[in-house]
Parts: sequence; structure tokens; C-alpha cells
Amino acid sequence: MKITDRLRRDADYIWRRIFEHPFVVELYSGILPMDKFIPYILEDYNYLIGAIRNFSIMVSRAESVDVMKELVEIVRLEAESEVKGYGEFLVSLGYSLEDAAQIEPGPMNVAYENFLLITSSFKTVAEALAAVLPCFWSYHEIAVFYQERLPSNPNQVYVDWASVYVSDEYVTLLNKLKGLVDSLGQNFDYQKLKEVFIQGSRYEYMYWDAVYNRDGWPV
Amino acid sequence: MKITDRLRRDADYIWRRIFEHPFVVELYSGILPMDKFIPYILEDYNYLIGAIRNFSIMVSRAESVDVMKELVEIVRLEAESEVKGYGEFLVSLGYSLEDAAQIEPGPMNVAYENFLLITSSFKTVAEALAAVLPCFWSYHEIAVFYQERLPSNPNQVYVDWASVYVSDEYVTLLNKLKGLVDSLGQNFDYQKLKEVFIQGSRYEYMYWDAVYNRDGWPV
Amino acid sequence: MKITDRLRRDADYIWRRIFEHPFVVELYSGILPMDKFIPYILEDYNYLIGAIRNFSIMVSRAESVDVMKELVEIVRLEAESEVKGYGEFLVSLGYSLEDAAQIEPGPMNVAYENFLLITSSFKTVAEALAAVLPCFWSYHEIAVFYQERLPSNPNQVYVDWASVYVSDEYVTLLNKLKGLVDSLGQNFDYQKLKEVFIQGSRYEYMYWDAVYNRDGWPV
Amino acid sequence: MKITDRLRRDADYIWRRIFEHPFVVELYSGILPMDKFIPYILEDYNYLIGAIRNFSIMVSRAESVDVMKELVEIVRLEAESEVKGYGEFLVSLGYSLEDAAQIEPGPMNVAYENFLLITSSFKTVAEALAAVLPCFWSYHEIAVFYQERLPSNPNQVYVDWASVYVSDEYVTLLNKLKGLVDSLGQNFDYQKLKEVFIQGSRYEYMYWDAVYNRDGWPV
Repeated sequence: MKITDRLRRDADYIWRRIFEHPFVVELYSGILPMDKFIPYILEDYNYLIGAIRNFSIMVSRAESVDVMKELVEIVRLEAESEVKGYGEFLVSLGYSLEDAAQIEPGPMNVAYENFLLITSSFKTVAEALAAVLPCFWSYHEIAVFYQERLPSNPNQVYVDWASVYVSDEYVTLLNKLKGLVDSLGQNFDYQKLKEVFIQGSRYEYMYWDAVYNRDGWPV
Repeated sequence: MKITDRLRRDADYIWRRIFEHPFVVELYSGILPMDKFIPYILEDYNYLIGAIRNFSIMVSRAESVDVMKELVEIVRLEAESEVKGYGEFLVSLGYSLEDAAQIEPGPMNVAYENFLLITSSFKTVAEALAAVLPCFWSYHEIAVFYQERLPSNPNQVYVDWASVYVSDEYVTLLNKLKGLVDSLGQNFDYQKLKEVFIQGSRYEYMYWDAVYNRDGWPV
Repeated sequence: MKITDRLRRDADYIWRRIFEHPFVVELYSGILPMDKFIPYILEDYNYLIGAIRNFSIMVSRAESVDVMKELVEIVRLEAESEVKGYGEFLVSLGYSLEDAAQIEPGPMNVAYENFLLITSSFKTVAEALAAVLPCFWSYHEIAVFYQERLPSNPNQVYVDWASVYVSDEYVTLLNKLKGLVDSLGQNFDYQKLKEVFIQGSRYEYMYWDAVYNRDGWPV
Repeated sequence: MKITDRLRRDADYIWRRIFEHPFVVELYSGILPMDKFIPYILEDYNYLIGAIRNFSIMVSRAESVDVMKELVEIVRLEAESEVKGYGEFLVSLGYSLEDAAQIEPGPMNVAYENFLLITSSFKTVAEALAAVLPCFWSYHEIAVFYQERLPSNPNQVYVDWASVYVSDEYVTLLNKLKGLVDSLGQNFDYQKLKEVFIQGSRYEYMYWDAVYNRDGWPV
């Protein structure tokens, strides 16, 4: 059994909660109010910038040059394709990257990003990748899980947004990340990988919850 | 006006909320149920260990040898006096350091600690100290604010716990931290110090709230 | 006066020593023995990989998103164009990237790289860029200084190698780096920038000396 | 066979070179000129400060709280006992800590320290300890190796200096470090430990050589 499959299985009890979260269900069925979706999308900017930082830390800590090069390619994809696609999507919604950059990220967004940065800064590249994998992977699984609902989804914004996570480009990136975890995770303490994969999965769930409830800073 | 006084003034709207938080009010008046206090105390272990990490990062990043030596002294105080006092307090409650070490810290504890570690790892020592100062300082101010209530506080555990934060040793440590922020903060962008001081103050408030509500990991 | 011009002027006493170093003089006049050039070129691999690490650290530590994006672009250039060009040059000499990867870098190469990584890890992005600038800049200045000698240089390998450092692509990269130091260096303690720029210039000189003398590990 | 014994055996070819190095031989026989010893002692300041940084980085990266506490104790020893003893020794020679602080460390001192800091920053605590162990250990072995010569050593300064490295306090510290490498090195790739132990041993040799030749910055 692949390490990533084992991680996926061990986190299944969280992922099922993610699939059933009202934000996800309502988004894919098209009934999520736009005033819940827009703040979520604008706040995503902070996550995207954090991802560039996060993968750059991994580049700097990679032991092998081959892994380093794969990570550089991911940084480039994040910094170019993802930022570009994200910016175009914002424009289609009547916003800009500048608008998004001015949004203060909420507590759960910050907590999630700091967890990822602490993991990449203080643990190994294998653990850093296992921590960030639930984000990339669960977005794809959610999109596959609800793919049949999309044709009847009345909100074209949501249909467009969801299409990204089943695109060839996205699947290629996801498989690259899974492949890295499977190769770096060999001869590595599985419990350490599991710990951060579970934690990353928890933050995915909690982040959906935070944006659904529009949790902000209480003071 | 000292930099620390300016920071204190600019965060006053948060600190007043802290003083009035039910956990604080009930603790100092003695009516806080012990089953809210015990989990809080046990979870403090993670914060204490995190503080040793945090100040060690600052030692390693200090530009001046004098500052480095002051920070080494703080690490030593945390790792010896504080851990010792904390362990003795646990014993008086029927617990041990080993019990505390086995508690999984909740989401807000982790978020707060990661904020501190990210600040010390990625920003300057001046900012790292400004981020952690609200914790040390607000505990003292709370204890002073409610000092008159202590004689009539029926719960000796709370009286003992509170006495630490007005002790000479604690005030000396607090003044050392304030002195470092005042000296390192000179010729430094005040807005950067304010940003992390506000953020640290927010986390203080939110942490009291989390322990009062006994917020755990939802998944 | 631009900050970079001031740095250049303050390091001039070292740079003149670099221009006159026998490795440089003999390379540009074409009389450098190939058995001094080949080990130098093979050892360059370690410097190139170190540069990717170094700029990735800067990406992760950049305060502004605009600076971060410029640094990501530099990482990409290093990891793709430079590695590709370097690999092709190796092939033209009868070697491969794999050969270069197997060379143990000598003491000065390691000392220089560690200085750069320590600077980017423990100081600001402004200082990290000022530390690495002498490398990029002095290679260009050397190439300009000796440009007239190239037509009569009998060693086509050296002519090809030198042409890179006056190419449009290289000058664009150099100007980008200088521009970043000039903008980030504003409102920054000039002495700190000077200290690392001088140190980087010293390592450039000492590295030419080490490869000329083929200094290896004595034990 | 203990891991530390295996490391010691695998580095023996370097350590024998250290024992026979003229700086060491002349120091222990008492004929080393004081104008070689004084610059070495003054430059040691930078190594001592670097050691505090180095062990603080390890504290911040320790996975287990027990290891963290042992490392905090080492930081404290370095920052207090060692700095104090070093300062008193300087005074006996007519110098002060302030004099030592003003000495610019030479290239080999800087290269060695940066190697240690890079190792602790980018590798595991096990590797960081294996990298710094040759310094602590070889000083003790040298002192034991030449212990018989001390009674006839005419230079009391050298006799006093050497006595530190066979003192109970020093041996306790050394054994603590060896114990940490032996315990953290279990279930760890031996080759990685060997690599940094060899590198640390090389730097020990090269540093004796640099101070014997009074190597400074050439520019």
C-alpha cells in the first residue's frame, strides 16, 4: 500500500466530514450565498502567498537536487499559473488581486498557514509535503465526488471554480506532490507523516467551517 | 513616551476586553469552576515548552552579544524556574509534569504558539519580543488590577496561582522584557512592533476565550 | 548616489585585486591552463545549487509580495536557464551535470556558500542580496573590463564562457538584483549592507585564488 | 560498538594529524611562541559566541522535551561558565572580553562557525551535535594524549589552559554530548552523522593550521 493511500485511509474520518460540510455541499449544489463565497475567495490570496513561502522553504531544505528541482517547479506554478488564474477569476467576479491583497486574513486562515510554515521550517521536507497534501488532494476529491452535480449547478461561478480541481494541470500537480510524499516517505517514520497529514486535514475542515461561519477576529 | 507605553496604549481596547473576560473575572473572584481551570493549567505546558523554543530562536538571531546574553538568561529562567514552579503547582493539584505533557494542546494554544514561533523565526528579535510581551505583561496587569479581590477569594489555588504574577521575580523578568523592546525598538519601524503586539494581545484574549469555552479540535 | 554605486566604490580596493588576479587575467588572455579551468567549472555546480537554496530562502523571508515575486523569478532563472546553460557548456567540454554533481566542493567554495546561506537565513533580504551581488556584478565587470582582449583570445572555450556575462539576459538579471538592493536598501543601515557586500567581494577574490591554487581539503 | 566510538574510529586518520600538528605539539611542550597563542585565544571569543547561537538553534529544533532541556543546560554552561572562565583567563594574560570582542575573526574561524550554524539550521539535532562533537572531544583527547608532558611544560599559561580540558566539569559536558549523539543517532542514517563528524574534524585540523600560520583575510 502506498504511503499516500495509507495516509488517505487514516484521515478518512476527517475527509468524510469535509465532503459533508455545508460550505462544500452548498457550493457544489449551487445554493451557497455569494456573500459567503466572495470573502472566502478574497481570503484565498493569503493562502496562495503563504504557499509560495512554504514551498520555497522546502526548496531551501531539500537534501537532494532532484527534489529541489521538483519543488522549484511547484513554486513557479504557484507564483505564476495559480496567481494568474486566481487573478483572472477575481476579475470575473468584479475584484482584483489588489483588492484581495488588502483583505486581512481571518484567524483560521492565519493558524493554518502558520502550521504549514512551522512544519516546513522545523521538520523535514517529507513532513512539510505531507502537511500540505490534504489541501491539494481534498480539493480534487471533493470535485470528483460532486462532479455529477455540476451540470445542474445553477451558479456558473461555482462551476468554473470547481472545474480547476479536476483539470489535467491540477491532477498533474497533485500526482507530483503525492509522488514526492511516497518517495521521501520511504524509510521514514510513518507516524510523523500521519501526524502532520491529520493536522493538515483538520485545518482543511476547520477552514471550511470558519469561512462558512465568517469567523473573524473577535477583537 | 516609551515604546512599550505606546504599545500598551494602542492595545488598550483589547486589554480592557481581557480584564473583563469571564475566565479572568471568575478566576480572580474565585468562582471559576475547577474543571475549567485544570484543563487550562495542563495545557499551559505546551505554551511553556513553546516559550523555551521561542526565546532560543531569539538567542540564535540576536545581533548583539549583550542582547544574546539577556535572552539566554530568560531561556534559563523559563527552562528551570518556570518549569520547576509549574511542576510544583501541578503536584499541589494532584497532577504531574508527565500528565501535562500528555495533553494535546487545543487549536487556539497551537495557533498562538505558532504565531510566536513564526514571528521569531521570520522577523527581527525586536518584533519577536513585542509579540510575546502581551502575554507576560497582561498577566501582571490582570493580577494588579484584581489584587484587592484576592483576600476574599475563597479558592486558595487561585490565590496561589495569582501571587506569582505580582512576585518580585516575575516583575524583574517583565521589566527585562520591556527594557529589551524599548532599546531594540529604537530606530525601528513602530508600525511593525505595533502589528505584532496587537496580534499577541488578540491571541491572549482569544486564548482566554478558548479555555473558558473549552474549545477543542472539532475533528 | 545610488546605494549600489556606493557599495561598489567602497569595495573598489578588493575589486581591483579581483581584476588583476592571475586566474582572471590568464583566462581572459587565453593562457590559463585547461586543467585549472576544468576543476573550477565542475565545482561551479555546488555554487549554482547553493544559489537556488539561497534565493529560495530570500523568497520565504521577503516582506513584500512584489519582492517575493521578483525573487521567485530569479530562482526560476537559476534553476532552469542557468542550470541548462551550465549543463550544455559542460557537455561542450566533454563532461555532464552528473560529473559535476559528483565533485566534492573545496573548502573555499563551501565557506563562500555557507556565508551566503547564513546571511539569507539570519539577516534581512536586503543584506542577503547585498552579499550575493558581488558575485553577479563582478563577473559582468570583469567581462566588460577585458572585452577587448576576447577577439585575440585563442581559447574558444574561454571566449564562449565569457560571452555569457555580457549577454542581455545576464545584464537584465544583474540590473534586477541591483534594483532590489537599491530599493530595499533605502531606510536601511548602510553599514550593514556594506559589511556583507565587502565580505561577498572578499570571498570572490579568495575563491579565484583557491581555484588558481587548486586548494583542496588538507585532510 | 557505540555510534560515537565508530565516528571516532572513522575520523582517526584526521585526529592523528591533529595530535601531531605543530601548534598542538609546541603548545603542549611549551615552546609555542606567545604571539601565536594570544591571537588564537582572542579569536576564540567568536567561536564561543557562535557556540551559544549553535546550541540555541538546536534547542529550538529539538523534537523531545528531554533533549531540549539538556541542550538548554549546555547553552547555559557556554554562556555562563565558559564565558566567565574564558574572561578570567584573558585577564590573566592582560586582556579583557572587550578586547576579544573587537578582534575580527579570520577566514577559517568564520568558515568553521558557519559550517556549524548551517548544520544546526538545516539538518537534524543529531547531525548538529555530531558536527560540533569533534571540537569538544578532540580538545579532551589532546589533553590526555599530552598529559605527561605538562609537568615539564615551562609555560604556566599553557599548563593552566590545558588543565581545563581534563577537568571533571569538562569531561561531564563531553560525556553529555557523546550521550546525546549515541541516543539520537540510533535509528539514524550513520553515513549522515559520519559526514558531519568528518567535516567537523577537518575544520578542527584546518583551524589549528590557520592559527599556526596566522592566516588572515588576504583582502
